[in-house]
Amino acid sequence: MSHTTLSLPALKMRLDGLFEVGRALNSSLNIDELLSLIATKSSQLLSADRASIFVVDSDKQTLWTRAQMGEGRIEIPINTGLAGAVATSGQILCVDDAYTDPRFNPEVDKHTGYRTQSVLAGPMFTSEGELIGVLQVINSTKGRFSEADIGAFDAIAGFAANVLQNGLLYADLRNTFLSVIEVMAASIDAKHRYTAGHTARVALYTSGVARLMGLPPREIEALRVAAYLHDYGKIGIPDAILQKPQALTPEEYDEMKSHAAKTRQLLSKMYLMKQFKEVPLVASSHHERVDGQGYPQGLKGDQIPLGSRIMAIADVFDALTSDRDYRKAMEPMDAIELMRKQIGTAFDPVVFEAFEGYFLNELHQGVLKEPEANR
Amino acid sequence: MSHTTLSLPALKMRLDGLFEVGRALNSSLNIDELLSLIATKSSQLLSADRASIFVVDSDKQTLWTRAQMGEGRIEIPINTGLAGAVATSGQILCVDDAYTDPRFNPEVDKHTGYRTQSVLAGPMFTSEGELIGVLQVINSTKGRFSEADIGAFDAIAGFAANVLQNGLLYADLRNTFLSVIEVMAASIDAKHRYTAGHTARVALYTSGVARLMGLPPREIEALRVAAYLHDYGKIGIPDAILQKPQALTPEEYDEMKSHAAKTRQLLSKMYLMKQFKEVPLVASSHHERVDGQGYPQGLKGDQIPLGSRIMAIADVFDALTSDRDYRKAMEPMDAIELMRKQIGTAFDPVVFEAFEGYFLNELHQGVLKEPEANR
Repeated sequence: MSHTTLSLPALKMRLDGLFEVGRALNSSLNIDELLSLIATKSSQLLSADRASIFVVDSDKQTLWTRAQMGEGRIEIPINTGLAGAVATSGQILCVDDAYTDPRFNPEVDKHTGYRTQSVLAGPMFTSEGELIGVLQVINSTKGRFSEADIGAFDAIAGFAANVLQNGLLYADLRNTFLSVIEVMAASIDAKHRYTAGHTARVALYTSGVARLMGLPPREIEALRVAAYLHDYGKIGIPDAILQKPQALTPEEYDEMKSHAAKTRQLLSKMYLMKQFKEVPLVASSHHERVDGQGYPQGLKGDQIPLGSRIMAIADVFDALTSDRDYRKAMEPMDAIELMRKQIGTAFDPVVFEAFEGYFLNELHQGVLKEPEANR
Repeated sequence: MSHTTLSLPALKMRLDGLFEVGRALNSSLNIDELLSLIATKSSQLLSADRASIFVVDSDKQTLWTRAQMGEGRIEIPINTGLAGAVATSGQILCVDDAYTDPRFNPEVDKHTGYRTQSVLAGPMFTSEGELIGVLQVINSTKGRFSEADIGAFDAIAGFAANVLQNGLLYADLRNTFLSVIEVMAASIDAKHRYTAGHTARVALYTSGVARLMGLPPREIEALRVAAYLHDYGKIGIPDAILQKPQALTPEEYDEMKSHAAKTRQLLSKMYLMKQFKEVPLVASSHHERVDGQGYPQGLKGDQIPLGSRIMAIADVFDALTSDRDYRKAMEPMDAIELMRKQIGTAFDPVVFEAFEGYFLNELHQGVLKEPEANR
């Protein structure tokens, strides 16, 4: 593999291109943005018309285009076409005219109206040597890809594989983390007489409202974690109170109310990365009221984190629309009607309006109810 | 920034060097290995004698060499020396003779006996523009670094920043995940009359023995998670049994024993990434015995996961060496003596030997006891 056939200006251009990939790599940590960028740069660097990055779906045994230029999302069986041949052999493949190669699958061209000619495709491996994708550049503007192109191609496939593996690994750990929290929250829920599924529904409503209010994805994710953990302090409340079928005595009610402060106290023991730093405060403030008459701290208005103000509405709405020993679940519209009376005292007016919008747009359309507690 | 001054062979060499960085990037996901590799390649690519990657410690307001060639670990105040000047200004810095530059700090040279002359140093930023490190190459073999070197340097700093940010982010999420599990485990512990601190100690002993037995770090981490979650099923046991001061009736004892099966059942609801796939089985098998008389499944010998065989010993050892209502804690040596009688029936002989080794080497030296439940 060498590039002795390249002229001085061509070499310079190539070097500049690689520099750009390097500089661009730290412009984002979003895996899809990075892969798109690598695809675009690859095609420029190799004077190709198009480039795509196929990712392996090992469950479905397919390859799909996680990043591509031109055509839309393509998904193919893992052993078909030129990309499939690369996935199967694990070798780089350089074809001058795809239509003369029996491995080529012309179906995609038929569908898109594009005409594939020269193809350079190679495997992307994890650091453990597992195949995770295929990088493919199509139609060299010079008519065909050269030996010299293969060296640069190999380097770019290495960058792309690293970016992809990192991204997948991070996403996998994040999903694990969120699932552990969801299941643990559900099992604390299950201790309480009334609250099976409650936490999952509060998390669903809260993140739905937050989305509607335009909060950024990372904040919504943190808020979802806070919502899952909002009743975590109940782990410190005795079964005798949590499961009592009769009305609670004033003393018992006070102890029950202590779950909010207990949530704060327990969550504050956790090491939480920056994104989740506010979780203990947000989770534990779901019984605060904008008039300052709530608990545990008696915060007022904007002193209450926005996430908690959303959660407060979601929490009451879910309680009213769930069965109790002494009453049936209320109809959602009746619950909202009843709750309206507490706008400005218990509930934040702006957030309440967003909640109503969320209800009308999404909940009411039957997206509800009883979401899966666990994914 | 251009490299018009480079000759054709020099350009080729540089391009080959960048290709190598690309290929090497997916040989490992270990952040320290990758940074070392980038340092080495940087120095080769820029014909420098040495290279180091400084990382920002924002708590201590220092820069320390997370990867370096030659000298050992260096830690300097964030605003001192040439690296500090880069950290402060956020600009690339190219110095022909360090000793004529007032910002240069000659202390490190004095200490190591090395003679710094030309220096090329530049900032490493996250995708959000936050400074996370400084890349520095020292002593160009050509006497001084050129304009042309700066373009390549900039690209490499981009790669290095991306690798570093990814690695730090992943480590941060992992620490968050582990901490959430530890705190949740401790709060379930706290429900049980006897078991304050129990889970954290079992996790400590189990991972200590696993380390001594040479298990790979990733497996030890998974085992530590399993150990933290081994009594998680107790969340499904009523307070009346968990907190009963008197001896349990046979029926109550059976219900208590169901915590192992409940652990399996609850943990199986979690989405767990590959590394942690075995956690539900390993965590729930800590009451199995090698003679097949244990529970919940009555597994025998090697059918019991190795991690569970370690945990079984750690679990009994911690119970015996903790106070109970009806007896004081046993002395560790007495507990081990007593447990020896169950080698080959309850306990795996090879694992028991490792546990004794661990006890003599580490526990007995007073590393114990009462570890922090939360980091």
